[in-house]
Amino acid sequence: MTRFMALLCLVLAALPWRAQADSLRATGDLGVVVERASGALLIIDQSDHAAIGRVEGLGDLSHASVVFSPDERFAYVFGRDGGLSKVDLLTQSVAGRVLQSGNAIGGAISDDGRLVAVSNYEPGGVRVFDAGTLKMVADIPTGSKTIGLVDAPGRRFVFTLWDAGETWIADFSKGEAAVTPPKITRVQGIGRNPYDALITADGRRYIAGLFGEDGLTALDLWQQPPIPRRILAGYGRGEEPLPVYKMPHLEGWALAGERFVLPAVGRHEVLWIDSRSLEEVGRTRTHGQPVFAVARPDGQQVWVNFAHPLNDTVEVIDTPSGEVIHRLTPGPAVLHMEFTPRGHEVWVSVRDAGRIDIYDTHSFEKLGEVAAQNPSGIFFTARAHRTGL
Amino acid sequence: MTRFMALLCLVLAALPWRAQADSLRATGDLGVVVERASGALLIIDQSDHAAIGRVEGLGDLSHASVVFSPDERFAYVFGRDGGLSKVDLLTQSVAGRVLQSGNAIGGAISDDGRLVAVSNYEPGGVRVFDAGTLKMVADIPTGSKTIGLVDAPGRRFVFTLWDAGETWIADFSKGEAAVTPPKITRVQGIGRNPYDALITADGRRYIAGLFGEDGLTALDLWQQPPIPRRILAGYGRGEEPLPVYKMPHLEGWALAGERFVLPAVGRHEVLWIDSRSLEEVGRTRTHGQPVFAVARPDGQQVWVNFAHPLNDTVEVIDTPSGEVIHRLTPGPAVLHMEFTPRGHEVWVSVRDAGRIDIYDTHSFEKLGEVAAQNPSGIFFTARAHRTGL
Repeated sequence: MTRFMALLCLVLAALPWRAQADSLRATGDLGVVVERASGALLIIDQSDHAAIGRVEGLGDLSHASVVFSPDERFAYVFGRDGGLSKVDLLTQSVAGRVLQSGNAIGGAISDDGRLVAVSNYEPGGVRVFDAGTLKMVADIPTGSKTIGLVDAPGRRFVFTLWDAGETWIADFSKGEAAVTPPKITRVQGIGRNPYDALITADGRRYIAGLFGEDGLTALDLWQQPPIPRRILAGYGRGEEPLPVYKMPHLEGWALAGERFVLPAVGRHEVLWIDSRSLEEVGRTRTHGQPVFAVARPDGQQVWVNFAHPLNDTVEVIDTPSGEVIHRLTPGPAVLHMEFTPRGHEVWVSVRDAGRIDIYDTHSFEKLGEVAAQNPSGIFFTARAHRTGL
Repeated sequence: MTRFMALLCLVLAALPWRAQADSLRATGDLGVVVERASGALLIIDQSDHAAIGRVEGLGDLSHASVVFSPDERFAYVFGRDGGLSKVDLLTQSVAGRVLQSGNAIGGAISDDGRLVAVSNYEPGGVRVFDAGTLKMVADIPTGSKTIGLVDAPGRRFVFTLWDAGETWIADFSKGEAAVTPPKITRVQGIGRNPYDALITADGRRYIAGLFGEDGLTALDLWQQPPIPRRILAGYGRGEEPLPVYKMPHLEGWALAGERFVLPAVGRHEVLWIDSRSLEEVGRTRTHGQPVFAVARPDGQQVWVNFAHPLNDTVEVIDTPSGEVIHRLTPGPAVLHMEFTPRGHEVWVSVRDAGRIDIYDTHSFEKLGEVAAQNPSGIFFTARAHRTGL
């Protein structure tokens, strides 16, 4: 019996240690892939080039987007069905879920990580939730479909009204969100039917694309109140010579050197925009109608994917020369590209091949692949530390 | 006995689960504070405004700096005594340590997180280590004290030779570092006695400060090979009307809107530099000789601390106007300031008060404090995702 007890003590002593060593995992190099068809997130490890788990039961994930908590532990998933899910990347489980509206598009997390906002079509408006509990702390009806929701510095959310052509800035910097309503600044005259918007990485410029007329509208959020400025008058649907298969995404209007790059609407081109004047300074001819034109974090390259039926291809543009320097064909339906935070790799979702491809962005060598079920958006946790992503 | 065994089973079943729940911790909001006098790192949690542990035995930490692994789990600490320590933030222990030279200054981690480089005074040169094992994989003697070591995109390290006035670019992109020596590009004509250098956040511009003559030297790393360009001819020791108490740090030459901000040498001023032309476009008068002038991540503010004997004060400059809009006096010997990654807070080390102060950067309200032993540098894990930090 004494020997049995001694053995038992050894077992008891060893167990917590083993469990601890097994369960320790840092979160800075994790990410998620949206598996739209199955309503699931695949959890990925960037360093290991591997999937490490799957979390299901997240509802309709068409056009889903994801933001992360500041500790890079929780992914907030915004579903098309109005579902807001909080997924724990460490326990690989759903930590919370609310069905907050009938039809939603996108969301954002405040700079302090305390508030999560969702943009709704039905009913129109923005709802804001406590990031810890998912309890609603503010309801901002707008009487309009709401699009282009982003976070801005100073615990603010910025979003735009499709029907009214207004941009609203909701400032939560004073008091507790559940008690003190946000201060709302309404900026009129944004234009007819804004369909998407972005904020630059420094949180200064908010730019809305227009469906109902040509051009884009820029706001300088350092101005109080911001004065809308129409830019790129020729940009839009109005004069396109080609049918528009898909309105391009405005997300990721990243700075490439001294210029922004923007997918043209309905043309086989990307546009280069001077980052100061916001005027067009050049175009690059591309393989197809661009969907995403994303700058590598250092800005020296821009990677572009394309609308159906040319969506098996990705082109790489060299920023200094504006030339296409590389073309690859990962496979059918390339839907999204995500760079590692310092840009040494890009992960590419190839939906109809059921694969994520991983490329070295300097040699263009394929480094690996990860199986996924109809993957669309890829989101690395490093987004937690960025504004407007 | 049966009841004893049943109880035992319950205990056994419960233990692993409890250990797991206790030990789960994400790493995106962690950080470390250098406690120079005790050769220790204080581990801090940004979300909780708290210290969560201390790791000792790290040697001489005067002028120590820290970089992080891509998963934000490990801190690599570069000590003045040539010690390179790898600290595990999850187990709060030293995961590895080598005394790699007699006298070192600073280090960097490659964009893929696989290589850690250290800059040495004695013997002069750069040594490169496997980030996993801390085994040396490359030794690059330079015959000179080596300063201004930074990482650049494409698995490169850039550093400068104090004696020879040269900048070297070591390119590790081809092959395994332990087998294939790096490709070295030597750029001559940097100037007399470069004492520190920086790389801009996009990894494009490398700028060295000169001790032996006025001005700074800029390289455009998009050029092959880069051609040195002398900028800010009046900048330096040569004409200063005041004794120089401390050469300013060049780290954190962050973009504030369309300008960089730079601490003047020996003057109570910061300089504004146009980010395109690299020419001076203005100055702001400050309380003392600036040591760090650091832009909030959105660039709308610059926070400045000062050299002895005026080092109890911090000033906040509004970028658009160039005016000092706020002054605070945290206490004796304000040595460093670190912003949370999206800029809503700044953490300030007040060495002689044994405290880290936490401020809201929008209201300037003090949010909290954390006790620390003679704190100097503060480093949040979000640096893992940035170039050149």
